[in-house]
Amino acid sequence: MNFTIQNVLIPAEPGYQTIDVQIQAGRIAAIAPNLEVIGTVVDGRHKLLLPGFVNAHTHSSEMWQRGIIPPAPLELWIAELYDFAPPDPEQVYLSALGTAIETLLSGGTTVVDHLTLIPGQEIETIAAAVRGYREVGIRAFVGPLIQDESLTASLPAGGKAWEPLPCAETAESLLMLMQEVVEKFHRPDEGIEIMVAPTGFQLCSDELFKGLVALSQQHQLCRHTHLLETKAQKMLAHEKYGCSAVQQMQHLGFLGAKTSLAHCVWLDDADITLLAATQSTVVHNPLSNLRLGSGIAPVFKYLQAGVNVTFGCDGAASNDSQDLLEAIKIGSLLHDVTDFDYRNWISPRQAIAMASLGGAKGLGLAEELGSLTVGKQADLVLYDLTRLALLPRTDPIGLLVLGRPTEAVHSAWVKGDRVVADGQVVNVDVDQLRQTLFDRSEWVFNRHSLNVQQFETHYRSVMGLPT
Amino acid sequence: MNFTIQNVLIPAEPGYQTIDVQIQAGRIAAIAPNLEVIGTVVDGRHKLLLPGFVNAHTHSSEMWQRGIIPPAPLELWIAELYDFAPPDPEQVYLSALGTAIETLLSGGTTVVDHLTLIPGQEIETIAAAVRGYREVGIRAFVGPLIQDESLTASLPAGGKAWEPLPCAETAESLLMLMQEVVEKFHRPDEGIEIMVAPTGFQLCSDELFKGLVALSQQHQLCRHTHLLETKAQKMLAHEKYGCSAVQQMQHLGFLGAKTSLAHCVWLDDADITLLAATQSTVVHNPLSNLRLGSGIAPVFKYLQAGVNVTFGCDGAASNDSQDLLEAIKIGSLLHDVTDFDYRNWISPRQAIAMASLGGAKGLGLAEELGSLTVGKQADLVLYDLTRLALLPRTDPIGLLVLGRPTEAVHSAWVKGDRVVADGQVVNVDVDQLRQTLFDRSEWVFNRHSLNVQQFETHYRSVMGLPT
Repeated sequence: MNFTIQNVLIPAEPGYQTIDVQIQAGRIAAIAPNLEVIGTVVDGRHKLLLPGFVNAHTHSSEMWQRGIIPPAPLELWIAELYDFAPPDPEQVYLSALGTAIETLLSGGTTVVDHLTLIPGQEIETIAAAVRGYREVGIRAFVGPLIQDESLTASLPAGGKAWEPLPCAETAESLLMLMQEVVEKFHRPDEGIEIMVAPTGFQLCSDELFKGLVALSQQHQLCRHTHLLETKAQKMLAHEKYGCSAVQQMQHLGFLGAKTSLAHCVWLDDADITLLAATQSTVVHNPLSNLRLGSGIAPVFKYLQAGVNVTFGCDGAASNDSQDLLEAIKIGSLLHDVTDFDYRNWISPRQAIAMASLGGAKGLGLAEELGSLTVGKQADLVLYDLTRLALLPRTDPIGLLVLGRPTEAVHSAWVKGDRVVADGQVVNVDVDQLRQTLFDRSEWVFNRHSLNVQQFETHYRSVMGLPT
Repeated sequence: MNFTIQNVLIPAEPGYQTIDVQIQAGRIAAIAPNLEVIGTVVDGRHKLLLPGFVNAHTHSSEMWQRGIIPPAPLELWIAELYDFAPPDPEQVYLSALGTAIETLLSGGTTVVDHLTLIPGQEIETIAAAVRGYREVGIRAFVGPLIQDESLTASLPAGGKAWEPLPCAETAESLLMLMQEVVEKFHRPDEGIEIMVAPTGFQLCSDELFKGLVALSQQHQLCRHTHLLETKAQKMLAHEKYGCSAVQQMQHLGFLGAKTSLAHCVWLDDADITLLAATQSTVVHNPLSNLRLGSGIAPVFKYLQAGVNVTFGCDGAASNDSQDLLEAIKIGSLLHDVTDFDYRNWISPRQAIAMASLGGAKGLGLAEELGSLTVGKQADLVLYDLTRLALLPRTDPIGLLVLGRPTEAVHSAWVKGDRVVADGQVVNVDVDQLRQTLFDRSEWVFNRHSLNVQQFETHYRSVMGLPT
C-alpha cells in the first residue's frame, strides 16, 4: 500500500513546515509541498508527523504481573517476581499484543523485547511473542533472556557467608538453543530480528557471553543485556571480575555499535569512555529506575561523552506502563535535578531524536530508520494535535514531550504498512483483547512474597541497611 | 440526585471488598453489602471506587503557555513566562474549564488554583475562573496570586550589583482587593473557596503577608503560597530575613493547619520541624520540580517528621500536564532514589491516601472529605478497571498508581453531583471546548524570549554557573 500524507506539520530547522509526505513500497518516497497523490490520501492537517520511536527495553510477559509488586529494590523485586508461575505460550502471545499496542499508541514503532522464556517451552515462547508482534505489525527485536547462573549468584557476598545455589542451565545448552532460535525466527527483512541477550553479567558466565558474541558475529545480530542497574551489581562486578562490569564486557567483546545496554546507572567515568569508544548504546529506563530505587543514570555524562542514549519502558512489572511518551518525558526531565546548568538539559527536540534516531542507532539501523528522510523505511507516527491535552496550540513537540497526551496517536506505519488508523489499531480487536486479558486474570487482594525472605536478610546486611 | 453504586470494589484492610455505596443529599449515606436502592443505580462491577484526589497546586491560565517554554530554572522560566501578554477573562474561563476537566479525568475532584490575575481586571479574572469551575462542577479553591514586589526582587543579590525594580502594586491596595474578592466569591457551602495566596516570600512584603494572615483569620480562609522552590530562593531568604523563609513564615503567622505550601524543596531539618509543629501541609509538585530542575523535595523527611504531604500538577507552563495520576506516580516513586532503605518508600496505597485525605487535610477539610467514610461529602471517583492499561487484573490500586492508565475515570461525583458519567464530562461539551481552544490559539514555530536576557547574566553569576 502507498500513502500520501497531505499538509502535515513536520519539524524543520528552525520551527516546523507544512508539507506532503509520500510513502511508497515501504519507504519514504518524497517529502515536498504539493506532491502528486499516490495511494491512499491521509489528511495531515492539525497533525504532526514524526519518525517512530523505539521502546528499546522491555519484557513483554511481565504484563501479567504489572501493578502487583510493591516498590522494592531490584534484587528483592526480582525475588518476588519469581513467586509467580511462568506464563503459558498463549499468555506470552497476549502480553506481546498488549505491549505492542501500548507501545504503538504512545509513538513507538519498534519494540525490543528482552523476553523471559518458559522453562522447557523456550521455542514456543519465542514463537508466541513473534506471532503477537507480526499480528500487530510492529517491528520487533526479540532477545531471549538467558542465564546460566542462579538468582542467588546475583547478590554480592560482601564478605558475608553467601553460597550461590547451582543453576540447571548450562552455557552449552543455551548456545545451542540460541542457534536454533536464530534459524527459526531471525527475519530482518520482515521486521523481526533475534538479538543475543544474556540477562546480565550478574547471572551469566563468561563462557555464555563469549559464545553469544560469536553467534552475533556469525549472523550479524544485535547484542543486548542489562548492565549495572544497581549498586549491588557494581559491588558484585568487582567481586566477580576484579574490574568494572563494563571493562569485563569489553574484554568479552560484547560492546559495539549494535550493542544496547539497559539501565547503566552505576558506571564511572572510565566506563563511560569505553561505551563511547565502542559506540555502544545506553537504554535509559527512567521509570523502573525510580520504582526500584536503582538511582538516576548519569545521562548528561553519556551525552557529553558522545554516548548514544535512547529510552525504554522496561517490563510492566517494574514500571508498570508501556507508555513510551511517559518514558521520554521523565527520561529527559529527570536529569535537570542533577545539574544546575540548564544549558546541559535535554530539550524536547533532543528527546525526540534520542527516542527515534537514537533507538535506531542502537539497533544498527541508523541508515534505515529514525528520521524523516527520503529513502528511509516508513516507520512513522502521525499525532492528532487537537486532543485536549495538546491544546491550546503552542509548540507541537513541546506539548507532546512535556505534556501528558493520551489518545494522541492518529496513525502509525511500520515498513510502510499502516498499523494504526484513526486512533485504532488496524490488525487487532483491542476490545476483544481486553476481554481475554480480563477473563484470564483475577484481582489479587492480599499476597505475601515467598521468595523475598530468602534474600532479604543477606541483602540488608550486604547493603548496610539496618536489620 | 441520589445514587446507589452496586457491587463496587473498595480498598479494605487488607485487600479489597465488593460492596454497595449510597450517595444521598451530597454525602456518603451508607457503605454495606446489598443496600436498598436509592436514586440512580450505578453498576460498580469491574470498577474501583476511591475518594477524589486534590490537585493541590496549579495555575490554570498557564494552560495558554503549555509546551512552549523550554526546560529552564524557575527564575529564567518565569522571566520567559512574562513575555506573554496576559490572557483575557474569556481565556481564563476556558483554561479553568480545561484544568478542571483534565483534573477530573485523572481522579481529582478538587482543584487549588493559584490564579494569576489580569492587571486591571482582577475581579473579572476570578469571576471567569469561578464560572468555569462552577460549570464543570469541580470543587475549587481559588487563591489569587498577588505580590507587591517586582520580579527582579526574586533573585538574590549574592554580593553582586543587583537593584530590584519598583513594583506598581502596594500591600494596601492588594488587601483591599482581597477583601472584595472574599465578599464576592467565597462560598464554602457551594464548593468554591477563596484562599489567601501571596505568590511567595520572594515577591511579597511582610506587610502583605501580615494583612493576608489577618484576613484569613477573619474569614476562616485557607492560606497558600509557594515556598522554597529553588536554591536561589533559599539564598534570597537569608539575604532578606537573616533566617530561613520558613522561620519568617512562622514569625508572620502564616503557618498552620489550613496552610498549604507549594514545593518545599529547599528546607532544612529545623524548617521541617516547624512545619510539623504547625500542622502545615506540603504540596509536592514533582513534575515541575524536575522540569525546572528545582531539585527533589525531601518528602521522606516530611513523612517521617509527621508533616502532611499531598500532590499538585503545578501550572501547565511548567509541567505541562494536569494529569493528577501522573503527579501521584512520579511524586511517590521519585524519592526511591533518595533512600536505599526501601522500608521508607511510599506504597501505592499511601500515595492514594496522600492525594485524597492528605489533600483534604491541607484545606482544613479532613472531617468532610478524603476518605470513603459514611457521613463525609460524596467527592468520589469510580475507575473502570477494564481499560487496556489496567489489564491483566492484579492489584487495582497498584495498577492505578504504578501504571499509566488513560481514560480510566468512569464516573466522578462532587458534593454528590455526578460530574463525569461513562467517561464523559457531564456539564461541558469537551469537543466544543477543544474547537474553541484550537481556534483561539496558533502554532508557535520559532520564538526567542525577550525577558530572559535581562536576568540570565545575573542569574548565572549569582548561582556560580560558567558565563
